[in-house]
Amino acid sequence: MIKTDILIIGAGPTGLFTVFEAGLLKLKCHLIDALPQPGGQCAEIYPKKPIYDIPGFPEVLAGDLVDNLMEQIKSFEPGFTLGERADTIEKQEDGTFIVTTNRGTKHHAPVVAIAGGLGSFEPRKPPIANIADFEDKGVAYIIRDPEVYRDQRVVIAGGGDSALDWTIFLADVASEVTLVHRRNEFRGALDSVEKVAELKKLGKVNLITEAEVVGLHGEEHITGVTVKHKTEGEFVKDTDHFIPLFGLSPKLGPIANWGLEIEKNAIKVDNTLDYQTNIPGIYAIGDVNTYPGKLKLILCGFHEATLMCQSAYQRIHPDKKYVMKYTTVSGIDGFDGSRKEAKKAVVKSIT
Amino acid sequence: MIKTDILIIGAGPTGLFTVFEAGLLKLKCHLIDALPQPGGQCAEIYPKKPIYDIPGFPEVLAGDLVDNLMEQIKSFEPGFTLGERADTIEKQEDGTFIVTTNRGTKHHAPVVAIAGGLGSFEPRKPPIANIADFEDKGVAYIIRDPEVYRDQRVVIAGGGDSALDWTIFLADVASEVTLVHRRNEFRGALDSVEKVAELKKLGKVNLITEAEVVGLHGEEHITGVTVKHKTEGEFVKDTDHFIPLFGLSPKLGPIANWGLEIEKNAIKVDNTLDYQTNIPGIYAIGDVNTYPGKLKLILCGFHEATLMCQSAYQRIHPDKKYVMKYTTVSGIDGFDGSRKEAKKAVVKSIT
Repeated sequence: MIKTDILIIGAGPTGLFTVFEAGLLKLKCHLIDALPQPGGQCAEIYPKKPIYDIPGFPEVLAGDLVDNLMEQIKSFEPGFTLGERADTIEKQEDGTFIVTTNRGTKHHAPVVAIAGGLGSFEPRKPPIANIADFEDKGVAYIIRDPEVYRDQRVVIAGGGDSALDWTIFLADVASEVTLVHRRNEFRGALDSVEKVAELKKLGKVNLITEAEVVGLHGEEHITGVTVKHKTEGEFVKDTDHFIPLFGLSPKLGPIANWGLEIEKNAIKVDNTLDYQTNIPGIYAIGDVNTYPGKLKLILCGFHEATLMCQSAYQRIHPDKKYVMKYTTVSGIDGFDGSRKEAKKAVVKSIT
Repeated sequence: MIKTDILIIGAGPTGLFTVFEAGLLKLKCHLIDALPQPGGQCAEIYPKKPIYDIPGFPEVLAGDLVDNLMEQIKSFEPGFTLGERADTIEKQEDGTFIVTTNRGTKHHAPVVAIAGGLGSFEPRKPPIANIADFEDKGVAYIIRDPEVYRDQRVVIAGGGDSALDWTIFLADVASEVTLVHRRNEFRGALDSVEKVAELKKLGKVNLITEAEVVGLHGEEHITGVTVKHKTEGEFVKDTDHFIPLFGLSPKLGPIANWGLEIEKNAIKVDNTLDYQTNIPGIYAIGDVNTYPGKLKLILCGFHEATLMCQSAYQRIHPDKKYVMKYTTVSGIDGFDGSRKEAKKAVVKSIT
């Protein structure tokens, strides 16, 4: 059982910054995220895209923003449960919560902050009848560890950035990479499209276009896929892995069944003073919440996380009164023993 | 008469970021600030101090944050009325406002956003009976333009960073600089204290410690000050200028008489959904406002400014519906004709 002060569901920018504000209040945090790395959409969907509306950054790449936030919270030593989806929540008699993931990992905390963004990102699956039977048997929708594919035969399907990028990456890892796409046209960064074209010319990847995978074969593990070509009809391509990369689509998922008030696929908060939900002790911050005039902006999530932490502090320490200190004046004391502070003024005689 | 869409009182971080969010909505902004430069306290009081709680910056100097914000808003071409204090507001029959400064500059806008921080920073004045008579006649509490002092005799009073820094700076500008301080001990950056000690040794500045200025002389203009020394008694020091630098103290000032609800020296906002005050069309954002659970943090001001701009848009364009766009997707169109946008994906065949 993982124990913490604030259990944060979702490790996007809002969830990450929560660790910082909680840390200033000496509260420890643990984050759960369905994606294999922190950063949410910023890291998974558009790490190389610039954001222009983060205050103080005329331009920042989404991936760099995540890196900066990870650096900012480092000394508050957050815990992470990554690649697992928060599935169930049970309120204990003492008012605390136990949250269990789809892989059975249990987390115990007096406060739960849902910073789930648009939801957990679920892969779009191709409509192949028996595809569920091959999940964990050679079919994967997200690549968590590329080493799994070393010296194996891989078929990738898709025509966007993910399909292109992983085709390029795995060309050096797998024994054989085949990219299957319904059209001749690929949509992605110009560099990536050109690189795949070059790898094809060099014979380092196979490209089957105007085609789609329509069937899967194998017993214990996948052994081949049926490819249906626009003009040439169906044929079987032997492979050890099939990786359809058709994008991720956010789903509120199991959180929708936690007894929280849901409105327009988001969690309604009771007020905009601490962003608490209809269940005391559970807060919703960032893109996952809704209230009149809500804007789904990262900078709003930062504010919401900050006010939420104050309320969480009161819940965890009902007997203490917290007096806010400015970091410029008081500095930062990390849980790792580190200290950051402004250079102090000296008092010195001139004689 | 200066005309704009949103008239912002206060050019601190919150006021500056308002220009950006307004700009995304194609609204123009003009800022009024009593200080001679934008940035508020960050620029005037602690430009060289690190701030640790701006999201995405593990550490940023207050002055650099201001520079970044100025860069971020540049293409939205904000107007500035600096070194003037917003004194009066008159609501027009059509619901718009005219704001007049202490120097008589008039501004006309349908929306006023008060981002006044802790108030306008008023200098602490020494208790010298006739000091008000010499204001603008050789007595100044803030140095707006150091060139005024070129080849003139200057007496500075104070023992903190401002007094030390301006003594150092004016040593190369004025014909004579005398620093008067009540104690031998100075409180400031180590560098500054040491530099003044060195200038004293080199005979480039006069230092009179354990003394204070108690009287002013002159007719049309100041000609000398009476210095009272702890042990040596009183004597007259001839000078062309007297600059007491005893710090700035924030005062809500004339805004307190605008008919706004005031609570704990701050402007009460009706709600935390758009931060509108009791007077429709006047908003209060950042440190100047108060509501239950208010935190006087820069990051909260950013959020408040953002929601406020949406409400201002509705007030200015009651017939239009604004659909929020993400800067990552839609880019930024500056009022100066500039355009920033993420690199677009290409659609390209591989044959």
